[in-house]
Amino acid sequence: MSTTEHTASADWLQSVRWNSAENRLDLLDQRLLPDEIVYLALTTSEQVWDAIKQLAVRGAPAIGISAAYGVYLGVRDHSGGRDELLDAAVKQCDYLATSRPTAVNLFWALDRMKQRARELASAGTEPEALKQALLDEAKLIQSEDEETCRLIGEHALSLFEDGMGLLTHCNAGGLATARYGTALAPMYLAQERGIRLKVYADETRPVLQGARLTAFELQQAGVDVTLICDNMAGAVMSKGWVQAVIVGTDRVAANGDVANKIGTYSVAVLAKAHGIPVYVACPTSTIDMNTPTGADIPIEERHEDEITQGFGKRTAPQGIKVYNPAFDVTPNEYVTAIITEKGIVRAPYTENLKKLFN
Amino acid sequence: MSTTEHTASADWLQSVRWNSAENRLDLLDQRLLPDEIVYLALTTSEQVWDAIKQLAVRGAPAIGISAAYGVYLGVRDHSGGRDELLDAAVKQCDYLATSRPTAVNLFWALDRMKQRARELASAGTEPEALKQALLDEAKLIQSEDEETCRLIGEHALSLFEDGMGLLTHCNAGGLATARYGTALAPMYLAQERGIRLKVYADETRPVLQGARLTAFELQQAGVDVTLICDNMAGAVMSKGWVQAVIVGTDRVAANGDVANKIGTYSVAVLAKAHGIPVYVACPTSTIDMNTPTGADIPIEERHEDEITQGFGKRTAPQGIKVYNPAFDVTPNEYVTAIITEKGIVRAPYTENLKKLFN
Repeated sequence: MSTTEHTASADWLQSVRWNSAENRLDLLDQRLLPDEIVYLALTTSEQVWDAIKQLAVRGAPAIGISAAYGVYLGVRDHSGGRDELLDAAVKQCDYLATSRPTAVNLFWALDRMKQRARELASAGTEPEALKQALLDEAKLIQSEDEETCRLIGEHALSLFEDGMGLLTHCNAGGLATARYGTALAPMYLAQERGIRLKVYADETRPVLQGARLTAFELQQAGVDVTLICDNMAGAVMSKGWVQAVIVGTDRVAANGDVANKIGTYSVAVLAKAHGIPVYVACPTSTIDMNTPTGADIPIEERHEDEITQGFGKRTAPQGIKVYNPAFDVTPNEYVTAIITEKGIVRAPYTENLKKLFN
Repeated sequence: MSTTEHTASADWLQSVRWNSAENRLDLLDQRLLPDEIVYLALTTSEQVWDAIKQLAVRGAPAIGISAAYGVYLGVRDHSGGRDELLDAAVKQCDYLATSRPTAVNLFWALDRMKQRARELASAGTEPEALKQALLDEAKLIQSEDEETCRLIGEHALSLFEDGMGLLTHCNAGGLATARYGTALAPMYLAQERGIRLKVYADETRPVLQGARLTAFELQQAGVDVTLICDNMAGAVMSKGWVQAVIVGTDRVAANGDVANKIGTYSVAVLAKAHGIPVYVACPTSTIDMNTPTGADIPIEERHEDEITQGFGKRTAPQGIKVYNPAFDVTPNEYVTAIITEKGIVRAPYTENLKKLFN
């Protein structure tokens, strides 16, 4: 990637950072975590496209925000008139949308940028003001995401008390969003307020998002975090060390069934057996009222190499048969509550999720 | 290790093999599994000591058998009289006992060899005949272990039917014993008889005995085995793919509580939630009537490196707090039956384990 790189320290670890002084996008290279904290300094939309394509930035909200800044970077040096500038902005949006095929927030953010550009052009906005307004829109998308996560954190934190032990699985943290994350948001808010929570982070095989990202970002923020292997969750619960489980989600069905990283279902069943509540934290945009139940959510199966040689070394026999689903579905009966920016939803989910959107 | 090495193919993968033609001990180097199948060719007791110390051979029964052969290798070139030979044999036993501190079967096997040497010397056995009798005793220890495992397998197999799915955790297989293993014994017997069992092997973090050893030895034997990450066990059960869980154990308490590799407890709780029976397979020598309950079994905590850089590459942040217990205790209420060479024991365990020993 033809970008200059620099390391930077921050009070908190920000995955997407607009650098006003340099008029550029600073992007935390998540591929190097947890070994190195390196920010890519991006000044062109092509660099942003590369960073998304090559997974330097991951997490649907973070990808959407990065792409929005990419639109501004793609037009800021445009020297034509208003109509030509609008054309260029639309082309930048279409170009950036090709960086990754599945991240819904990417298309959502780019559609929003495109709409904004059209509105501004229709209103007769001058080119330089239009460019500035696009940058402002990208900043707004970022700040709205941060606010959504903060609200999720506030609602979640209302369920927790000083001294409680929480267990989380995979990474639903600040690295995947503008700030705070979803499942990790209450942990950051608690830390800011001197409320002590003790967090157990499942390492989350096969890709180890828990070890590489969750443990890392909570450690950076000074949160009391202990890394465990996934198979230790039951033992930790049996010792009375966990008072609540909180996880993110990739999709919530209309009946409250929850698709999330593989292993979430096992954690939820173990929690129920120990009388421990299971909370699912997500923005309302993750709740898909067009998906009736968890059985309607397709489960991606991934390559066997993630299990047999995930870390540069072969750890299983050649030719071994492997089952490697990326996600599992936790039925609503295991979900104590779904925590959104609009509030906390409990069973019966079919009724109460409908109410949330009305 | 100053031994010649050779690869060898066998109908089944034997961890400890007496080579009569060459009058030496051939030991499968388990450190190289599953990448390479290499047998160490051992001709001296010092080489056997090294192989045990350096974990080329693991699994309590396999260690005991290897040490017994080591006693013979240590005295076979002795040229003195009967009394000197007895002294030498006793010294070899004491020497080999220093190779590892905790494996109970090591001391048990060496005590048996020492006793046998004394009996033979007392009976006036000539030196050459005494040496031969010690070799025969080592072979007997090995064949008895094989028979114990085979009987465990027979009893276990009586619980299973053609087409069933089994899930196992860690490695309680042929590599840890003379042959067949404990938990894996019914799978080998089924394979010999054309009974089709479908096995799911938990990879068993952090040390991956499931991926490296169980998946490997079952694959070698032609058993239908699928490797999964530990956190996939719940998802696999929820799909109806598992009809029974079967695991080994490091110690059974007098009340039927079972200590085994970390993660066994999570598997047992998940199985119970899905109405799946949990079987524990072990020789009666693993049942410790002097340990009242699981709470009395000390749980070893191991080094954090196993979790943070277990794959030859660092996969967690520097300085992260880690909890790494090697074992957990599964309370007797989760144990459907304990399967020994003497038969199948069910609750109430306190009564029925006592009966087993009377």
